Amino acid sequence: MKQKQGRFITVEGGEGAGKSSNLDFIRQQLEAQGKQVLFTREPGGTPLGEAIRELLLGHQHQGMAHDSELLLMFAARAEHLQQKILPALAQGTWVLCDRFTDASYAYQGSGRGLKTARIAQLEQFVQGDLRPDLTLLLDLPVEVGLARAGQRSAPDRFESEQQHFFQRVRQGYLQIAADQPERVRLIDASLPLAQVQQQISRELERFIQRLGG
Amino acid sequence: MKQKQGRFITVEGGEGAGKSSNLDFIRQQLEAQGKQVLFTREPGGTPLGEAIRELLLGHQHQGMAHDSELLLMFAARAEHLQQKILPALAQGTWVLCDRFTDASYAYQGSGRGLKTARIAQLEQFVQGDLRPDLTLLLDLPVEVGLARAGQRSAPDRFESEQQHFFQRVRQGYLQIAADQPERVRLIDASLPLAQVQQQISRELERFIQRLGG
Repeated sequence: MKQKQGRFITVEGGEGAGKSSNLDFIRQQLEAQGKQVLFTREPGGTPLGEAIRELLLGHQHQGMAHDSELLLMFAARAEHLQQKILPALAQGTWVLCDRFTDASYAYQGSGRGLKTARIAQLEQFVQGDLRPDLTLLLDLPVEVGLARAGQRSAPDRFESEQQHFFQRVRQGYLQIAADQPERVRLIDASLPLAQVQQQISRELERFIQRLGG
Repeated sequence: MKQKQGRFITVEGGEGAGKSSNLDFIRQQLEAQGKQVLFTREPGGTPLGEAIRELLLGHQHQGMAHDSELLLMFAARAEHLQQKILPALAQGTWVLCDRFTDASYAYQGSGRGLKTARIAQLEQFVQGDLRPDLTLLLDLPVEVGLARAGQRSAPDRFESEQQHFFQRVRQGYLQIAADQPERVRLIDASLPLAQVQQQISRELERFIQRLGG
């Protein structure tokens, strides 16, 4: 049975969690089920969004006010939703997005200490009631992730501070999964790839079955 | 008597209202009273703000979502406040700003039809309770302003649409002045410059007297 409305799936996870290869795998799984899939990413996803991404990630504006960073993130997100995600969903296309608002909560909120309530205000402002239908959280211990991402095993002081930051980000993500267990499905990304993909397949099947499709 | 805290004065007005020359005049008047004055403008005012201004005013991203435009405006404003306006006020410097949030209400709200309540949400998010201490609204009929700004007298269809837009902007500004008559002082900018400056001087004197300074 065909869905008239597409579904919105997001993938979250920290450094070295294998997001890229698993995003490819998810796309293939959905297409094998006959779904039309739009793949996109945050921050970015539109020309304006990519320009904002440069402001956010470039070195020219380091030390920007936390509020500015958050407002820029959500400005890019508003554009992404209006120009790309919502029109695709309305046409019945499934949208697979590399990171979304959960990343704002995990990185800006838990990682950098911005108040959750302020992030929630902008989430409501930009998204109204729209939330992802399914979020796969690729979780693994920070040390394992950083090692996979090519970090040395003995961290210097800066890398050690980084580790604490990523620990907070991980805890933030795990808290979201604990608070919203139906939407956010935890994938143990420390296992070998084949077993990670097995978990992902199971979650996608479960999700599609729940839709009655 | 010296104020420990600087005051925040904004100047608003449409096309051809003579903002630039009157801003110079206001600055001179304040400096003649012994005030230290920081002059700045919106959108912009900081390196990040100027980069955002380019995204907003450039032709590359025409057709951006209304929400994105509003969020970008307030992202620049948050940076402007944190990096420039609030530190200056805290040091006792008076801040004179060419346009501020009233312009968002007039242009995006009344002009473009964005809901006032949505602008108010972001105003509260970014500014908390901070509002300008005094706003001088340079008001004049749209036709007079456009003629002064160098428009031809017989408008073509596009210019005629523009006139309707500027009419709505003017009405928006006048509504703000009517709603907040203590903060927003109306200056009749259709008069000859000397008489405009006389009104401005009177308002500044009145404002400074009210401070007991």
